[in-house]
Parts: sequence; C-alpha cells; structure tokens
Amino acid sequence: MNGRIRCPALERRIVSAEDAARLIEDGMTVGVSGFTPSGCPKAVPAALARQATEEGRHVRIALLSGASTGGEIDTLLGGAGVIARRAPYITSEALRDVINAGGTAYRDGHLGSMARDVRGGRYGKLDLAIVEACAITEDGGIVPTTAVGCAQTYVRQAERVIVELNLTQPAELEGLHDLYAAADPPCCPPIPLTEVSQRIGRTAIPCDPDKIAAVVITEIPEKPRPLAPENADSRAIAGHLVAFLDAERAAGRPFAGRVPLQSGVGSVANAVLEGLMDSDFSHLCFYSEVMQDGVLDLIDAGKADFCSATSLSLSAAGMGRLLGNLDRYRDRIVLRDSEISNSPEVIRRLGVVAMNTAVEADLYGNVNSSHICGTRIFNGIGGSGDYARSAGLSVFMTASTARGGRISSIVPMVTHVDHTEHDVDVLVTEQGLADLRGLSPKERAERILACCAHPDYRPALREYFDAACAACGPVQTPHLLDRCFALHQRFLQRGTMREPSGDGD
Amino acid sequence: MNGRIRCPALERRIVSAEDAARLIEDGMTVGVSGFTPSGCPKAVPAALARQATEEGRHVRIALLSGASTGGEIDTLLGGAGVIARRAPYITSEALRDVINAGGTAYRDGHLGSMARDVRGGRYGKLDLAIVEACAITEDGGIVPTTAVGCAQTYVRQAERVIVELNLTQPAELEGLHDLYAAADPPCCPPIPLTEVSQRIGRTAIPCDPDKIAAVVITEIPEKPRPLAPENADSRAIAGHLVAFLDAERAAGRPFAGRVPLQSGVGSVANAVLEGLMDSDFSHLCFYSEVMQDGVLDLIDAGKADFCSATSLSLSAAGMGRLLGNLDRYRDRIVLRDSEISNSPEVIRRLGVVAMNTAVEADLYGNVNSSHICGTRIFNGIGGSGDYARSAGLSVFMTASTARGGRISSIVPMVTHVDHTEHDVDVLVTEQGLADLRGLSPKERAERILACCAHPDYRPALREYFDAACAACGPVQTPHLLDRCFALHQRFLQRGTMREPSGDGD
Repeated sequence: MNGRIRCPALERRIVSAEDAARLIEDGMTVGVSGFTPSGCPKAVPAALARQATEEGRHVRIALLSGASTGGEIDTLLGGAGVIARRAPYITSEALRDVINAGGTAYRDGHLGSMARDVRGGRYGKLDLAIVEACAITEDGGIVPTTAVGCAQTYVRQAERVIVELNLTQPAELEGLHDLYAAADPPCCPPIPLTEVSQRIGRTAIPCDPDKIAAVVITEIPEKPRPLAPENADSRAIAGHLVAFLDAERAAGRPFAGRVPLQSGVGSVANAVLEGLMDSDFSHLCFYSEVMQDGVLDLIDAGKADFCSATSLSLSAAGMGRLLGNLDRYRDRIVLRDSEISNSPEVIRRLGVVAMNTAVEADLYGNVNSSHICGTRIFNGIGGSGDYARSAGLSVFMTASTARGGRISSIVPMVTHVDHTEHDVDVLVTEQGLADLRGLSPKERAERILACCAHPDYRPALREYFDAACAACGPVQTPHLLDRCFALHQRFLQRGTMREPSGDGD
Repeated sequence: MNGRIRCPALERRIVSAEDAARLIEDGMTVGVSGFTPSGCPKAVPAALARQATEEGRHVRIALLSGASTGGEIDTLLGGAGVIARRAPYITSEALRDVINAGGTAYRDGHLGSMARDVRGGRYGKLDLAIVEACAITEDGGIVPTTAVGCAQTYVRQAERVIVELNLTQPAELEGLHDLYAAADPPCCPPIPLTEVSQRIGRTAIPCDPDKIAAVVITEIPEKPRPLAPENADSRAIAGHLVAFLDAERAAGRPFAGRVPLQSGVGSVANAVLEGLMDSDFSHLCFYSEVMQDGVLDLIDAGKADFCSATSLSLSAAGMGRLLGNLDRYRDRIVLRDSEISNSPEVIRRLGVVAMNTAVEADLYGNVNSSHICGTRIFNGIGGSGDYARSAGLSVFMTASTARGGRISSIVPMVTHVDHTEHDVDVLVTEQGLADLRGLSPKERAERILACCAHPDYRPALREYFDAACAACGPVQTPHLLDRCFALHQRFLQRGTMREPSGDGD
C-alpha cells in the first residue's frame, strides 16, 4: 500500500467491504463522495446491494451524493430497492425508472446548495459518510480521488465515516485537490476565490481518525462514461456558439476570451470544446463542474491555461492520458468541493460564460432541463441553475428536434420550468442562435422562431404565437391555455409532435 | 439652499425642469435613481410628460430604473406614451396597461442584476441619468435621498447626468447611504459585507462635475404609498409564519432570530412585522430591499437592532416619523445600492430568511410572481428571485384565494414560473404552512393540499392530483397536460374558478 495509510491507528480498522456494508442500517441517511461516476465509493455500495438482493437484507436508506454516481450506487443499490430517498441528482437509467415508478422519493436540487443544505439540517442527521480516497494522511485526513462533490461536508456532518481506499486510483492524485472549509451564516466570510487557478484550501479532508469506523481496501476500477459522440447537430450548435463568442470578443464585450467558461458533459459540450480547438481563442480557462476530454486537448494545444472543476469526468482514454501525465497537468487543474465549483458567489464574481443543455425551451425563453412531458424526471436541474442564474452570460443549447424529428425542442410553453425567462441570455440550436438579452417576451418569441425552431415545426409554432397574440391581444406573454401543450399531447397520444398527414397517418 | 450645492461650478448649471427635460431626446436610453416611489426624480419626468402631451413633442425612450418608480415616471411618462422600452420592474397600473396593450416593450428581470447588466452593455449605451439628490458635495458627489436603486451605476455609465435637487428631502439624509462601487469580471473582489450593519462604501455617488449637464431645483414632495391594510388573511399568514420561525429557533436551527430577515411591501409583509412585534423575538435585523413602517415599530420597541435596505418605502406617517427623528434612527439604518441589497452573494452569506409574496403556487411548489393567467404581466419578478434562490430559508406567502374566493391561489400547475420548485422552502397561506424542505414533488403536493389549499378548492385540487397520479402512474411529477389549466380556463370564461353549481349557475 506504499504509504497510502499514513495514520497507523487506521490500519487496524481495515475490514472487508462486506463487513463495512453491514454498518449501513435500515433508515440511515448516508452521504457519498464523488460527482458523476468519478470519485464515488464502489466496493461498499456493491456489497450492500449484494446483501440486499442475495441475502434479502432489508435496508432502505436516504442516499445523498454530490451529483450523479457510479453504477455501484444508483444502478446497483437503486435497482436493489435500497434507496428510499435520494438527492440531489441522478443520471442512472435504472434509478430513474425506480423513481418514476414511485420506489424512490427523489428531491432534485441545485448542486451548489447541497452541502449547505445538509449542514443546515435539511436532510436530518447524517449517519454515515462513505468516501473514496487515494490516501489517508498522518492525522486522518482523507485525500479524495477523481472527484470531490460534497465529500468534505458529508465527512464533517456524519457520525461515522467509511473510507474506501482505492488502489487503482494513483497516489499522485494527492495535491490536485483544493478543499475549502466553507462557513455558514451568521458568521460567514466571503469565499476568497477571485481567480480560477487560485488555491484557498487544503489537499485532504480533515477527519478525526476516531470517526473513521472502517477502511476498505479496494481495487475496483472506475468505469468512466464513454465520450458522447458528436453529430451534425452538435457540431452545428458549437459552430453557432463559437462564432457568437468570437463576435462578442470582437465587440469588446467584457467576457469572451477573458473570463472562464463552464461546459458540461455530452455531445454538444464536447462539440463546443472541439469548436474552440478550431477557433483562434487562446488563454482560455474553465470554471466548471466537470472536466472533459476536450479540455485536455485545449491544454495540450496551448489554447487553455487552466481548468477548475469538482470532477474529472473523462473518458477511459482521457483518464489514462491525465493520470499517466499528471506532472504535466498538475499545475493546470484543480478539483474543488462542489459547493465552490458551483458557488453562485464565485460564478458571479468571475463572470463565467455558462453553457448548459436544455431538454426543451419555449417561445419566451423558459427552459426545461429535467422533465419529459412535464411528468417523468430525466436527470434533474443539477448545476445548471447555479451557473445560469449567476453567469456573466447564460447560454442554453439543444438540438431543435429529438427522437428522429418526432419531438420539437422548441415548444409553445415548456411543461416544466427549471430556468425562467430571466436567466436565459442565449438559446442555440443547430438552426441558429437567438441572443435574447434585454428583449421583452414577444421580441424573444420572434427571435426564437426565426433562429432556433426547426423548419418542420416553425409553421405550427408561428401559428400558435399568432393565434395567442390574436386571442390575448398584445399582452406581455401571449398564451392559449387550452392549446399550449397541444404538441406534447399529440406526442403522448401518437408518439410524434408532427401533424398527422392527410393520408390517415 | 443652505449648502445643498457645495460644488460652485454646478450652481451655474441650474436650469428649469422644462429646460432639463429637453435634454431628453427621442431614442435615448435614460436611467433614473430610486426604488419604489422613493428617491426617484420627479420634476424632469413630469416636465417631459407635459411636453409630450401638451406640445406633442415626440419622444420615445428606453427607461431603466432600480425597481418601480414614482407616479411622475411610470404613470405620467408611461401614460404619455414616452416609454418605448422599460426594465427591470413596474407597479404602476397605468404603465401595466400600456405594456399589456403592447405600447411598451417590458423586460422584467432580477433587480440585483440590473446594474451589472447595464455595465455589461445589455441595454446599450446609457445616454442620460436623472438622479434625485438632497445635496451635491464639493467634488460633484451626488447624495441620494430616500432610496438608491441603480443610481450609482447609471451615473457612472451615462454620458450626461441631470440632478434633481429636492429641497423637500431633508439635508440630514446625508450620511445614511453606504454606496459601494461594485467591480466587474474578470477583476472583481468579494463584496466585503459580512454584517448587516457594516459600512463598505461612501455616502455620495462620485461624479465628475463636468458630466452634470443640469441641476434642477425642485420642491415636489415624495408621495409615499399608503400602508397596505392588514386583513384577517394576512394576519393569519403572519401568525403561521411567526409560529414556524419560533419553532425553528426552538429547534436550534441556525437562522431564526440570529440571521437577517427580508420582508417586502404589502398587506402580508406588514402583518408579519406586526406579528414579530407581538412575538418574543428580539435583536432582529433586516437585510432587505425596502424598509417599511413595521421595522420602525420594531426598532422603537427595542426588538430590532438594524435595517439595511435600498429604499425607505414608508407611509407618509412613517416617513415623517423617520425624517423627524433621524438622529435616533441614523445608526440603525443604512441605504445601499440595490445591487448590494439584492446581492445573491451577500444574501447567501448572511443566510437571509426571505419572505416574498406569490401570485399563485402549484401543487409541486412552483411559484408565479408576475403573470395573471400566464399572459398579463402584473408587476414582475422584482427582487424575489435574488432572495429566494440564495436565502437560508425561502418563504412564499399568499392568501389561498383571491377576488372574493373566485380564484384559488393554489393551482394544479402555475401558468408562469418565476420560482422553481427548487427555490421554495416554505409556502404559507391563511390556511396553514407547508414546510417543503427536502421533500419530493409528490410529498410536497400532499403537504400543500393539506396545509395551504382553501377548503373550497381542496376537493378539485385533490381530484386533479389523484387523477394525474392514476393516469401517469407514480412518476416524479404527475400532471394531466389537457387539464392542468382547467381552473384558469374556467376563470377566463366565467370569471370564477369555482365549479358551476347544479342549478344552472
């Protein structure tokens, strides 16, 4: 283990994952480290799932995370019926199905507020924290691995802590983290972060060794998500956006090229990074939740100087490239607590250009990030609200259609609002880009119709808008409450938002 | 004028309001001081309205403010057709009618972001700032009056400035303001405010005297809004809320009684302050947009220590009481720029308990603050989003019915979302209080049905929820897209949301 456990007392607490999992009891509230599959505990959740399914052990817990988790948690534990309550974010299809079947009470929320909410008692007493580590320091300090999330707060708040020491995570990750011990009202100083690359904390999570109930040695490798493939739509969206940022920079607008970018995961986000590779932007920096492969490319190409994130959300190839060359990247990357990476205070101060993905957007610029047809949760709001509300420029991106053209992502009224009209500056589809800044709702509708809607759906959307204006008169936000969801209803009934063709289709 | 103009060069710039109004030209963008009717310029807007209506002078301008304005601006100028574009907030009935008739393009937005957005160029070049002052200092510094709003940014950004020196505003207001020169990305330090009573700025808005194109001496008195009357509903809401805050304090929750309160204007807000008078809370403090009469009462009763606001939104009696006893109140009150009073950074740091009013709320906790039946703008989002998103505790309040019971304020789905389910911790009506923290959407629905809905509408809401659960299955957020606005549609058709009675009503 080569100095992985530097606190001798803790060597005596090494137990098997099976034994550690038995510390998790029915009714407990458990917090886990990590953000996306990165940095999450693996062995103990997998063992608990086994106990639940194979031994019929009845355990139902509230599970709190940083964001989505690895398959051992949401998919295995969720699928085994162990997760009674869940916050603040998921992406697992298995757990999504459980939630939408009523098996898990899911409270999705802003990722940047989660640690504060837990400290403030909103999720009750935290019984247990399970944290993946690449090392334990002399005084019990826990060195996280490829992501942080809410690990620091969960360790601080939990009665007991289980550390999963993952030997497949390189010990050289130590030093990459900057862990800031956030304070709470009423005595709360400003977060002293004013530059993306600044360090304001420590490299390990402080923890009284007596609180560490078990140390589990594991060699379960992380299963990174494969890189989402780009396609013609995502490349077109990226093209529109990079051209817009370039024009902003040319116009002397204060942000472009001088303030940090936030960029998520997925096909469109990857295409944007690709687009930046082909642009003449330089000295880019990122203040983001996740770091993707494209950022490594930008660093390697000398186009990006720095990336601050809470998670290395890299493909297997990207993770290999980073971990194999940590010395080269070490002074260009920092991993922070998610309450810092997603801090509205810091995001606002830095003037971040936020780029998030919409499920659907409406004519007036409201965005749905979370619900399919208003009812079935997809993922959750995640960090998009942390960024969009406080950003210097808030961009939402989506292909104008989904499911082979059977869904229009531009709709008369979104069926669920995650981002209000006040928080959406720019909307981009493969059709084009609508700059909505300073516009009134009806002006936004004209621009979104002209720039973003798919031509196949533009006539129906135009007809709705004209009919709403005619029926309501020139009110602030014309709508027809009996027809605003007609496209969605048609989709629910017929599997497509398209108008029936004349021949009886 | 007794030392009201201490910069001699500016005495030569004194002109009549009529002459100053002629500096405002067609197509200009004009920013005004103030927040609510307080602290707004009066003489020049009134003169311009006269020129437009009586002389037929054609002037159409974009008008930017801190929040709502005095009658001389939104009502007179708006009614005269002078306001082509407007941001970020209104309450004038006259201007509301113009907006809903398509005569003014209105962009409502977060009040705390307005100054930053103007500095960032979102509203184009600012031609003119018109600022009410109680004095001008030796070096041209402008001392605001009963409110600040965005005055500092408008003065900084405008090409030229008109100062309205209002002799009815006491010179003793000087010293009450704390004006912080906010910086912008990418070089932006933390806002150093960590206590409600702290002073971090100056007492006058810095201004190059050469930029001051005109000084208008006026004696138009401010017309404070009358105190909104309390009623049984607002008293019941206040009762539920004060009891809840008391229980939170008893439970050792970190906020109650130790962190500041935000409280708006209106019947319910006044009743809450009244309720606090009768409670055993002490050492209260306020971090708010506006200061109302009730805060003076709490200070006088020794129950409140301090109030930070951007506006003295007092009744005539309250204003008289404050201005007549400024020495007594001087070290208990500070007036800040609205980007500080509404700063998400500071609100989050202080852990403010935010109390805002809803137009309607839905079963899942989404709140509409701005639109009647989704189409007609009422006021706008105002500062509610600045507070609700960042608050330590976010409370929304509304009577459970409106218009004599013909409208239910609890509806299946709100027709416009200003505050998403993620930002609403507590919902209160006169029926009761629903603590929504940590709950999933379906759990929230049960609690809102049980605690907040009016008994007359509870059966219809219950029937909707049950039908949605039956039709959708136990998805995250059950909804029936063909029926979710049925109550609103009935109201639009029949003037009431009530079910038709059997006898043909």
